[in-house]
Amino acid sequence: MHAEIVSIGTEILMGEIVDTNSGYLAAELAKIGIDVRWVTKVGDDPERLHEVIERGWNRSDVTITTGGLGPTSDDLTRESIARVMGEEMIVQDDLLANLKSQFEGRGVPMPATNIKQATLIESAEVVLNPMGTAPGWWVNRGDRVIIAMPGPPRELSRMWDNELAPKLRSMNPEVAIVTRTLKTFGISEGGLDEMLSPLFKSENPSLGIYSKQDGIHLRAIATATTEVEAREMITPMEQEIRRIAGHAIWGLDDETAVTRAIDALKQAEKTLGIIEGFTAGLLTSSLNEAQGYSDVLAGSLVASNPAGLQRFGMPQEVSDDWNSPTPATAETLARTAQKFFDSQVGVGITGLVAEATEASGRVGTAHMAFAVGDQVTSRSGSYPTQRLRIRSRAVTHALLELMAALNPSN
Amino acid sequence: MHAEIVSIGTEILMGEIVDTNSGYLAAELAKIGIDVRWVTKVGDDPERLHEVIERGWNRSDVTITTGGLGPTSDDLTRESIARVMGEEMIVQDDLLANLKSQFEGRGVPMPATNIKQATLIESAEVVLNPMGTAPGWWVNRGDRVIIAMPGPPRELSRMWDNELAPKLRSMNPEVAIVTRTLKTFGISEGGLDEMLSPLFKSENPSLGIYSKQDGIHLRAIATATTEVEAREMITPMEQEIRRIAGHAIWGLDDETAVTRAIDALKQAEKTLGIIEGFTAGLLTSSLNEAQGYSDVLAGSLVASNPAGLQRFGMPQEVSDDWNSPTPATAETLARTAQKFFDSQVGVGITGLVAEATEASGRVGTAHMAFAVGDQVTSRSGSYPTQRLRIRSRAVTHALLELMAALNPSN
Repeated sequence: MHAEIVSIGTEILMGEIVDTNSGYLAAELAKIGIDVRWVTKVGDDPERLHEVIERGWNRSDVTITTGGLGPTSDDLTRESIARVMGEEMIVQDDLLANLKSQFEGRGVPMPATNIKQATLIESAEVVLNPMGTAPGWWVNRGDRVIIAMPGPPRELSRMWDNELAPKLRSMNPEVAIVTRTLKTFGISEGGLDEMLSPLFKSENPSLGIYSKQDGIHLRAIATATTEVEAREMITPMEQEIRRIAGHAIWGLDDETAVTRAIDALKQAEKTLGIIEGFTAGLLTSSLNEAQGYSDVLAGSLVASNPAGLQRFGMPQEVSDDWNSPTPATAETLARTAQKFFDSQVGVGITGLVAEATEASGRVGTAHMAFAVGDQVTSRSGSYPTQRLRIRSRAVTHALLELMAALNPSN
Repeated sequence: MHAEIVSIGTEILMGEIVDTNSGYLAAELAKIGIDVRWVTKVGDDPERLHEVIERGWNRSDVTITTGGLGPTSDDLTRESIARVMGEEMIVQDDLLANLKSQFEGRGVPMPATNIKQATLIESAEVVLNPMGTAPGWWVNRGDRVIIAMPGPPRELSRMWDNELAPKLRSMNPEVAIVTRTLKTFGISEGGLDEMLSPLFKSENPSLGIYSKQDGIHLRAIATATTEVEAREMITPMEQEIRRIAGHAIWGLDDETAVTRAIDALKQAEKTLGIIEGFTAGLLTSSLNEAQGYSDVLAGSLVASNPAGLQRFGMPQEVSDDWNSPTPATAETLARTAQKFFDSQVGVGITGLVAEATEASGRVGTAHMAFAVGDQVTSRSGSYPTQRLRIRSRAVTHALLELMAALNPSN
């Protein structure tokens, strides 16, 4: 089975709203064995919208629209689908009663324009939307389907999980797809590609390699008739990857550098103090991503210029070396963090962003150090990228190195 | 003139790489009077890619492709355009010499597969790419154009600015479009809509209203034959908006809450100390966005749990109230920040994220206070949104309120 996605709205087309829905749906469809062939963004123009939906109906098993289900005259998804199907939109009493009671619950009268949110065409069933006023449509004729979903990501993902994923999966019952992502750090893409080259020739499971901010990801995908079978097909490939490159693997699937670092601290039962120089709070604020981070974070200090650092227990040389920091500067920051926050682990990170040059753009250099008990280790990295990304690269690097410093055996 | 954008690559189609190029190009094209009608994402499949580019060629004045210009067998943009145009790809000696010298400069031999990056078809001219190995193509027959651009945003935006924007503008010389964005905070979208309702009826300049994280934006767009003329058309509308809602305007065009807050500190010649509770460094790290922020930031402390706060000069009640913070807590943090960092301005921000409920999702409440000299003011806000966005909403609110606290006359 194959699908296409139509993202509707002039603000989406013009990039004023970033369309995260189509990427989310493409990944979700892949998990249930439905291949996405096209994504089209189209504005709130009745002719062009009609044309795009008609093309989807003609060429794709499943066409999923997102957006354009609001109450205004710009919201034309229902009208366009009805026109493609050659059917009339008819007000449904139960939907209307439900809609009215939603407005009553908020203490406001229902505007007349909302009535179209209570309509269906003959080929359509309603898809419940517990998070909003616009129900979705499931339109089915023959073996083709058009699905209309609301644009707000919170409404869309709930509707997908509760209603649409199970329904589409039951149309495609003989296909189960399992993916396994192994995240590595410290080996180049070319290096991994060479080390694992025989595995890339396998077709099912297949193996893909992706360069990401947090290292190189390896993703195995297996297709079978059941999930258990697909999982069993992946196991030997995962074992082989671990045998060859296991030392470089730091995380699996949805794990991130942040969640792994916080987990490592929790497992080690250690608290963390941080002093940040040029990353200016970015390392600390990234920890937000992991729930419960505040149980292990003792505190963090951002030192953004060399004045008055002695107040926080830093020796004079940290101020002296402020504009040409070294690994030793980071080590001093890490030890100072440990003392200042009375924590078992101290992290210090500092660095510089070089002025941009025409040829190379900007290059950032970071020094980072990890004080765990009496031991201090340091690492340095340099990141040739845009100004605003240098710091986030350095932060990811620091989180991965923190994990390694907490588990020196790995 | 109207255009369409084709974003090429299976990773783009599947949402593994977020396609920022199409939104960027749509906004840039609008500025030079070219209307974008469709954006299509398509994978690295030769048949589907051919079909999408052929449809663009048949229906749009300008078709812009992004991506698929790399050296591998998956990079099929050139081949697809050549097939649509019915022309042969021919290696260009000057392009090949240039490509080889780029590899020599890096000290590596040029792989044979890169040769296709040195080809053109008869209808194509080369578009220089100083940031990468893949030049673009400008393909022109009759009054239609296909433009092939590289996928990396850094290469694409440079190529747009230097080469393509001037070239397209010269095809559309009689149209100049000027936009003016006025950014407001503190009045609801509905309220502004009502206050300014006569202005929304104007067609040229037109006025749009957009709800954003940093408040409500008003955008006036004027179309004329020269830029000066378009600018003159906007002036009276801007004056009228300022007369009615001027007190709510905090920024213009590309200004952000961060750049305005840092500018306000620089103008006031004041330094800033920060203590963050639940935002955990997000306020501080956001300042990174403004160059030279470290000249005004004396330092920042993240206090993530109530233990040991006395060490930093906080009274016992801050710890006692940690799980039910009040505006008074924020005021104490602001005064403590001022003292702790010996700065003229102290900002304290704290708050809580409520547990999610089925009906309302999560709600976050923030308290923020601003100590400027001897004066302390506080503000509170609550933000019903996703867990990871509550803190960024609170940070934007704090930056806008900081600006107001520094300019109490506004």
